[in-house]
Amino acid sequence: MKNIETNYSGGISSPLGFKAVGVEAAIKSGGGLDLALVFSEQPAVAAGAFTANKLAAAPVLYDREILEQHGYVRGIFVNSGCANACTGSQGDADTSRIAALTAQALGVEDREVLVCSTGRIGTCLPINNIESAMKNAVDSLSEDGGRDAAEAILTTDTRPKSISVTVNLSEGPVTIGGMCKGAGMIAPAMKPAVPHATMLAFMTTDADVDRDFLDQCLAASLDSSFNRITVDGDSSTNDSFIALANGAAGNSTLDARHKDADIFQEAFTYVATWLAKQIVLDGEGATKFVEVKVSRAASEEEACDCAAAIANSLLCKTAWFGADPNWGRIVDAAGYSGAKINKDNLQLYLQGVAAVQNGIAADTSEQALKDAVSGDEVKIELELGAGESEYTMWTCDLSYEYVNINAEYHT
Amino acid sequence: MKNIETNYSGGISSPLGFKAVGVEAAIKSGGGLDLALVFSEQPAVAAGAFTANKLAAAPVLYDREILEQHGYVRGIFVNSGCANACTGSQGDADTSRIAALTAQALGVEDREVLVCSTGRIGTCLPINNIESAMKNAVDSLSEDGGRDAAEAILTTDTRPKSISVTVNLSEGPVTIGGMCKGAGMIAPAMKPAVPHATMLAFMTTDADVDRDFLDQCLAASLDSSFNRITVDGDSSTNDSFIALANGAAGNSTLDARHKDADIFQEAFTYVATWLAKQIVLDGEGATKFVEVKVSRAASEEEACDCAAAIANSLLCKTAWFGADPNWGRIVDAAGYSGAKINKDNLQLYLQGVAAVQNGIAADTSEQALKDAVSGDEVKIELELGAGESEYTMWTCDLSYEYVNINAEYHT
Repeated sequence: MKNIETNYSGGISSPLGFKAVGVEAAIKSGGGLDLALVFSEQPAVAAGAFTANKLAAAPVLYDREILEQHGYVRGIFVNSGCANACTGSQGDADTSRIAALTAQALGVEDREVLVCSTGRIGTCLPINNIESAMKNAVDSLSEDGGRDAAEAILTTDTRPKSISVTVNLSEGPVTIGGMCKGAGMIAPAMKPAVPHATMLAFMTTDADVDRDFLDQCLAASLDSSFNRITVDGDSSTNDSFIALANGAAGNSTLDARHKDADIFQEAFTYVATWLAKQIVLDGEGATKFVEVKVSRAASEEEACDCAAAIANSLLCKTAWFGADPNWGRIVDAAGYSGAKINKDNLQLYLQGVAAVQNGIAADTSEQALKDAVSGDEVKIELELGAGESEYTMWTCDLSYEYVNINAEYHT
Repeated sequence: MKNIETNYSGGISSPLGFKAVGVEAAIKSGGGLDLALVFSEQPAVAAGAFTANKLAAAPVLYDREILEQHGYVRGIFVNSGCANACTGSQGDADTSRIAALTAQALGVEDREVLVCSTGRIGTCLPINNIESAMKNAVDSLSEDGGRDAAEAILTTDTRPKSISVTVNLSEGPVTIGGMCKGAGMIAPAMKPAVPHATMLAFMTTDADVDRDFLDQCLAASLDSSFNRITVDGDSSTNDSFIALANGAAGNSTLDARHKDADIFQEAFTYVATWLAKQIVLDGEGATKFVEVKVSRAASEEEACDCAAAIANSLLCKTAWFGADPNWGRIVDAAGYSGAKINKDNLQLYLQGVAAVQNGIAADTSEQALKDAVSGDEVKIELELGAGESEYTMWTCDLSYEYVNINAEYHT
């Protein structure tokens, strides 16, 4: 991408004026880094999108209110090992207490701190452990702390997911950093243009960004990234996507009419999309990355419903694991998705190889189809013949290891 | 159940005036019985419900038309090993050809024969093999053929599913027989009162039943049986539920105002429900039968959506396989189902043991919860605290064997 330089060693603390840290606070029962902080040296404009789950966790409710009432943030507290969901009034009180503890340690106002949690549902946070770890965490904040922070937010993930990009705007470079976590309980928002996220993701930038424009960048990037992924079809109680812009780069304020608006938004979406794909690549038990593109649909909503039906189909996901080109399962899922289909114009390609032509089996050998789905990445292209709309989603296969992880993971 | 005598050795040919057969016709690639016929000695009133899948298979389209244009049936042809779905105009021609072949062999009109297929999507039926087997099939029709017929319609099922009941009506006994198949690609209709089935199921009775009343019995039983089950969330292209009533018992015609209407309808629903549960019990790789009851919902539709979200959740299904009482996954699925929840009144019981009380963890030991979900059957009861409606669904867990069956099953 022109003007954008990618740094795969970068992360949430790469932009100017941001620090981060990941420490061990004895929140995860198995030990390891489990408390992350992100800190901006100056107040940062903030935007966020959160789960639509009706049992949204205490920190989600807290952050939504902070962002509605107050648009500037100095710090984000994140813990893994406990979701603080279904914890009633105790959960609400614990969230406020953590915001206060974090604010006090950072020397900022309580309302300038956001709180995110991920892990087991139904248990309360070990506040004393968190309080004990806080001073050390704040003392250890650094411009190189992004990697540890990305490690500290993980649950069933096998690796941290972190990146930064530098974009040359007309007045000079700005940097955008990001990290995310998520490997299971990952599902899309299902409808385009409904901004809610499906995991924990954080982005920072040293660009000076108008609040409305940051909201716009976050919503647009969400539709192109996190809302397009599914691992298991389960939307979490804690999904959060938060972006901070602190202006430390010294550029003139970016808004939708700024001449650099497009390039900034493109870079922002690039980071969000890269992070979203990392979640699928690290999906629980995943051995294949699968792109499902549905085109020639009657509407974008129908294309999305159809892509989601295929991406979440157990029969499709297990066939992909078995490198089985059983395309009947793909068209079956399309058939029950509710999307209009002109069956005489139904076309299906597996990694570019025709499987269905005009609604019936294409004249392709079984072996050619098998070869097509045998790689680590599979692209499914389905044309419904019912219109001109399209939608693309990313998912993974369903393996024995998925069952192993989820039949065993609990306490 | 009063007045109803169950015969677990009975089946589709148990009612008077019905014969059935199952033969080997070289349709299934692995061999074995794969062609079934059901024959009524006199014209039988017929009712049917079919998949809502937009890529409904050729035989589904054919049967729908027959039942709309003509309400009397003498025979049903059923094959396993090939779904005759996504087969274009060839598939339509093959279905008509099979109806004609069957009719000719039975000595009845073409339009008195229904055709059902199940198996692989996207391949055409081996008409010559079917034609070769037809005479032998018809010659072998017998009153004891129900068991072989129930065997011949299976695909990934591990066992036939067949039953009959005899009901004492005021004018004497009538018998209802049934058989079904299905172990995968099984999903509910999702909305109550939308009559479409999710597998192959056949019921016969020697009662004399008015056509409208048979339609009513079929629709009502569907809502209490096949529409309440899910194995994998995938609705098939071929799902069909067909009932025949031939009047051979000699009773006066049953309609909705007949004094025996309720007892007959009760018996009819009893058979359909028993068959539906057999599908879940034989679900691909299933080790547990799980009943999900959602109550105190704002509407029956919301109760259904919530029960379906839980019953189809990969995270719930794998937890059940692991005998893991991880209730967070259950309430998470309720949360994203869209159903209204009053979280301070949310209650969850696992096999009668309280897991959630008033929205937070109940004061129950981890071991007691683990014990509760360790049996072969688990009852999940979730109260949403949002109204007075309820809905119950039946599902199974998701095991390594599910992955094995579906990563390997193809050709």
